[in-house]
Amino acid sequence: MQDIRIELREDKREKPQDMSKVKFGKTFSDHMFLMNYDSQKGWHDARIVPHGPIPMDPGAMVFHYAQEIFEGMKAYRTESGAIQFFRPFENIRRMARSGERVSMPAMDEDMFMEALKKLVEVDKEWVPSEEGTSLYIRPFMIATDVGLGVHASDSYLFCILTCPVGSYYPEGINPIKILIEDQDVRAVRGGTGYAKCGGNYAASIRASVRAGKKGFSQVLWLDGVERKYVEEVGAMNIMFKIDGKIYTPELNGSVLPGVTRKSSIELLKDWGYEVIEKLISVDELVEAAKAGKLEEVWGTGTAAVVTPVGWLTYKDETFEVEGGKIGEVTQKLYDGLTGIQWGKVEDTRDWIVTI
Amino acid sequence: MQDIRIELREDKREKPQDMSKVKFGKTFSDHMFLMNYDSQKGWHDARIVPHGPIPMDPGAMVFHYAQEIFEGMKAYRTESGAIQFFRPFENIRRMARSGERVSMPAMDEDMFMEALKKLVEVDKEWVPSEEGTSLYIRPFMIATDVGLGVHASDSYLFCILTCPVGSYYPEGINPIKILIEDQDVRAVRGGTGYAKCGGNYAASIRASVRAGKKGFSQVLWLDGVERKYVEEVGAMNIMFKIDGKIYTPELNGSVLPGVTRKSSIELLKDWGYEVIEKLISVDELVEAAKAGKLEEVWGTGTAAVVTPVGWLTYKDETFEVEGGKIGEVTQKLYDGLTGIQWGKVEDTRDWIVTI
Ligand SMILES: Cc1ncc(COP(=O)(O)O)c(C=O)c1O
Ligand SMILES: Cc1ncc(COP(=O)(O)O)c(C=O)c1O
Repeated sequence: MQDIRIELREDKREKPQDMSKVKFGKTFSDHMFLMNYDSQKGWHDARIVPHGPIPMDPGAMVFHYAQEIFEGMKAYRTESGAIQFFRPFENIRRMARSGERVSMPAMDEDMFMEALKKLVEVDKEWVPSEEGTSLYIRPFMIATDVGLGVHASDSYLFCILTCPVGSYYPEGINPIKILIEDQDVRAVRGGTGYAKCGGNYAASIRASVRAGKKGFSQVLWLDGVERKYVEEVGAMNIMFKIDGKIYTPELNGSVLPGVTRKSSIELLKDWGYEVIEKLISVDELVEAAKAGKLEEVWGTGTAAVVTPVGWLTYKDETFEVEGGKIGEVTQKLYDGLTGIQWGKVEDTRDWIVTI
Repeated sequence: MQDIRIELREDKREKPQDMSKVKFGKTFSDHMFLMNYDSQKGWHDARIVPHGPIPMDPGAMVFHYAQEIFEGMKAYRTESGAIQFFRPFENIRRMARSGERVSMPAMDEDMFMEALKKLVEVDKEWVPSEEGTSLYIRPFMIATDVGLGVHASDSYLFCILTCPVGSYYPEGINPIKILIEDQDVRAVRGGTGYAKCGGNYAASIRASVRAGKKGFSQVLWLDGVERKYVEEVGAMNIMFKIDGKIYTPELNGSVLPGVTRKSSIELLKDWGYEVIEKLISVDELVEAAKAGKLEEVWGTGTAAVVTPVGWLTYKDETFEVEGGKIGEVTQKLYDGLTGIQWGKVEDTRDWIVTI
């Protein structure tokens, strides 16, 4: 493994006084990790440097052809003051799979883990300790070849940023309103939906803005082929409790394989629930809702962990779920996952990596 | 219209000695145009400055969510030494449509045109005059808000770069080999295919690399829904002459509406050809090829103008077109378009804007 050169900043930044006022992903820690790749040297020049601007050539591939991928994960501070990661190798491996889709190189897994550990250690004072807070970690990679011909870049910059983040729901978890999007498409089988690459998100912004103006928190995407099967929400996977069983869209290539999704399925199964991964049509959901069998709906994702959905709107019809209140399984899952993440519940599955 | 501040560079760069050795989009002129947008000030600070690196915050939206669009156009030097653009407002308007899809603001058309003119004028010595050469122009816009939450950025940077480019085919136009891609999908209806945004290109790289290794110049994309209808080639639209008539895929939302495509259709119709825009299935093409009726195939795009396709491969079958030679209509179209672009043929359609 390569050594990581560390250059500490002299002018330490001020840390947030009140974590409840910190906006998601807007406050950055003192340092960032950088590493370069090119086909000749491979990965090289691993370094932790003061967080700050990067000089970029305006002809760099990333600005024109969006050859860029990212990850989202967190470091949690436990009651004893220790700092831990939740299933970091899931993110590391997903980033490699994302890279494969858009012809970008993977980083060595151990090097990646070492970079995460070192960076969080250097900025350990930035890992907050208030209830529900954490250090959000954003690894990303961009194509840096300069040239306007469309091609796979030969050179890349890998970077890790970190942000202290408050509890996603400072006022407690309240169910959200979701609009099933029937115009714009986010991703399609054969495309890049399963990869965490920038283009998927650019494609999603217009519908989110439109839905936001109508009072919805997020949109629920439909598949791009038949516009019939539900896929996922903005930055969360989606789960339904129908007539006692748990359903979630199968990973068919256009849905992001969420780490929280995977972990939720494992926990739910351990707890004895039947969990079914399959294509789920809007019609099925509407039918279940009308028959009073749509018992719970929630989203899963690193940022908010588990988010109850209280209202689902399709075309002009709105279905209320559980009287707009958080359901039993949703709450249990939230407690189960956050319990492990913050070290309040014993980790019996080897999900935790401590620093 | 706002004034453009001009800051000339002192250390003028050396211009290419031999245009036939210049690689596409790798050599940049002395200056670039920059302009900023934010919702408070609108578009502001139009400036022409020395071409060079731009300091970017690593948390800028463009690196994570690919909120980025671009255009590709050219300035041509005529025999008299004048410099002219080919249908620049087509590019200006397409960029506005691209922006709408990914929630980015449009620039005032006249301001955009003024920026193009001024920038090319400042770097007029960079517009080459050798046969078939031109100044490639790359306007692009990137989201510069700093923050890791997915949202429509509030601030943007608009930039225009220019590159002297050689004749795309210094050894004369030779028909290329194209692979019909049946695995990866570039774009789908409802998605961003009709927009010139980075994500479409990132999605296309893997298939292009794979095809390149097998000896193909480009891939021909199929529609993302049925994987049955041909759409377009890497950076070109596609046209077929079948049994005397010209066919090209209709603009159904996932195909880029090329300026060269539009101009070709207009010229061909003026010349008396029947041009049909419709969904074209691979099966139809295979059938026509087998019946000896696939008379010509060519791509259209700003970079290479018109490119004859000599061989089309689908799954493991290859169809030769016109004995692998350039066809009559292809040649006529190439001559017609380039004639107008370089000012050798009279512009009777108001396509030319001179500086
Ligand atoms: C599109 C999308 N779906 C789902 C998720 C949830 O994935 P994870 O649980 O790994 O955070 C995310 C966020 O990471 C996402 O961006
Ligand atoms: C995907 C794609 N299709 C088609 C074209 C051709 O368009 P135009 O003729 O406007 O250059 C381009 C290039 O600009 C392109 O990138």
